[in-house]
Amino acid sequence: MIVTHPLLAHDAASAWLGVTIEELSEGHATLSMTLRAEMMNGFGTSHGGMIFAFADSAFAFACNPRDSDGSTQTVASGVDVNFLAPSYAGQKLLAVANRRASSGRSGLYDVQVFALPATGSAADCGADDVERQLIAEFRGRCRTIPTKSAQPSGS
Amino acid sequence: MIVTHPLLAHDAASAWLGVTIEELSEGHATLSMTLRAEMMNGFGTSHGGMIFAFADSAFAFACNPRDSDGSTQTVASGVDVNFLAPSYAGQKLLAVANRRASSGRSGLYDVQVFALPATGSAADCGADDVERQLIAEFRGRCRTIPTKSAQPSGS
Amino acid sequence: MIVTHPLLAHDAASAWLGVTIEELSEGHATLSMTLRAEMMNGFGTSHGGMIFAFADSAFAFACNPRDSDGSTQTVASGVDVNFLAPSYAGQKLLAVANRRASSGRSGLYDVQVFALPATGSAADCGADDVERQLIAEFRGRCRTIPTKSAQPSGS
Amino acid sequence: MIVTHPLLAHDAASAWLGVTIEELSEGHATLSMTLRAEMMNGFGTSHGGMIFAFADSAFAFACNPRDSDGSTQTVASGVDVNFLAPSYAGQKLLAVANRRASSGRSGLYDVQVFALPATGSAADCGADDVERQLIAEFRGRCRTIPTKSAQPSGS
Repeated sequence: MIVTHPLLAHDAASAWLGVTIEELSEGHATLSMTLRAEMMNGFGTSHGGMIFAFADSAFAFACNPRDSDGSTQTVASGVDVNFLAPSYAGQKLLAVANRRASSGRSGLYDVQVFALPATGSAADCGADDVERQLIAEFRGRCRTIPTKSAQPSGS
Repeated sequence: MIVTHPLLAHDAASAWLGVTIEELSEGHATLSMTLRAEMMNGFGTSHGGMIFAFADSAFAFACNPRDSDGSTQTVASGVDVNFLAPSYAGQKLLAVANRRASSGRSGLYDVQVFALPATGSAADCGADDVERQLIAEFRGRCRTIPTKSAQPSGS
Repeated sequence: MIVTHPLLAHDAASAWLGVTIEELSEGHATLSMTLRAEMMNGFGTSHGGMIFAFADSAFAFACNPRDSDGSTQTVASGVDVNFLAPSYAGQKLLAVANRRASSGRSGLYDVQVFALPATGSAADCGADDVERQLIAEFRGRCRTIPTKSAQPSGS
Repeated sequence: MIVTHPLLAHDAASAWLGVTIEELSEGHATLSMTLRAEMMNGFGTSHGGMIFAFADSAFAFACNPRDSDGSTQTVASGVDVNFLAPSYAGQKLLAVANRRASSGRSGLYDVQVFALPATGSAADCGADDVERQLIAEFRGRCRTIPTKSAQPSGS
């Protein structure tokens, strides 16, 4: 079954990353992505920005309701991220985003990023926590604001 | 004059981002990058992960000495980032990384990300703070560790 | 039953705060404390530093094993804290600290701080999540280092 | 000359800490405080919560204008703090708070906490950066909200 989110249809960066939505519910999203050579840094491990971007996409899908009427949007105001272990080209990653707290227009979400074992598949997601390695803990802060049309700098 | 860093030669992610090193000195790096359509999110603004990745590259070039003998590498253990204003495709960004503190194998670096005005160029970097807009404040924590050869997951 | 930790015996700040250890196990600690008038700020709500200090004590008891031989100590290298709701003099608080990740000498712990309802008691801790209010989320980073004898500045 | 702030008059926690305002201007505050035995933790060094509380008071005086009409108050929504070096009973500390960014009702402030040398005095504050040691970097996030009268939990 294919899960989708209206934001994903227009999210060029998530498309470039190659994310797939595995699960989506109120305040929650699970995404998968396979690391590519072009996501590596000068040390031959994943660039922190690519791990962050993957987690940030999961955060966006978790904190913006799928059935939004478009009058508001929820955007990241800040993040604290801890990088716990390196990851490598060819590995499949999971990002599991969950709401931790919310009050008024503010929210706090945790996103855990896991590297699956070489033979892992999305079907194993919940099956065996022993097998997957926690590589990053991302805690995102968000604010819900009225939607404005985007104002490209060139116009 | 072209500034370079040995890490940059092998940094596929920074190459994909399209970063240019504008300045490099002990504990400092300034990078520039132009935002492309594929770096935008579902709201038509820059994906937070792309802004983070740009700042993270500046962080890596500031905290890894250019003349390292290769026996150690300095890697990000974590980051606190605050997103202050949106940015858009076509805008040119600057990331200015500076060492804030260091002790033993631990370091703390600040990276400020600015959007330049439409007509901005790298030559204007220091000229007019009024003209450039602060879009993100990134505070990175790093650790210096012995270098291991990368271990791709597939081998 | 009274729970204790060797660190608590010498912890003058936790004594001043008036913390009680409710539960203690490997990687976990639950503390309680009652807010006093001298812990309030200029707005009449709890001073953020007092909420932080309470959570920080729970963090210390969770990340330092009770049966340590004293050759190492685990200290906070940094914290990201989010203040979610105000609290007031007379309220009883709980701090629940749990290990989130650990690798080598580094660890990551989450501490949740709750305000109990006016009639709350420690015996209610796990009974009714609806009744208690989450007032702060504290994520602490720690490092385990060799123990040195303290060097007071005056000697 | 004695510097004061209307918030300080009612701030019981800052009074207990024993803070003195050394400087105060738009978006800026410098405080001093002497570490006491009751602020030490189980390792004989300053309890992280006391260092945090001291920095948090400087943050509050920097982000709340001295001439506020009382209709709004600016409160901390979160903080990222890095502890860089230990400090000890008897040492005099300085907290230097500066606005880093502000937009609408949100602000970002940096507070640096320094330990002065044994013979240091407030008069030396700016004189000799070599002599004072940076012991913590605190980055605070704040929101300006309408003032409500405090609602003690017991009423």
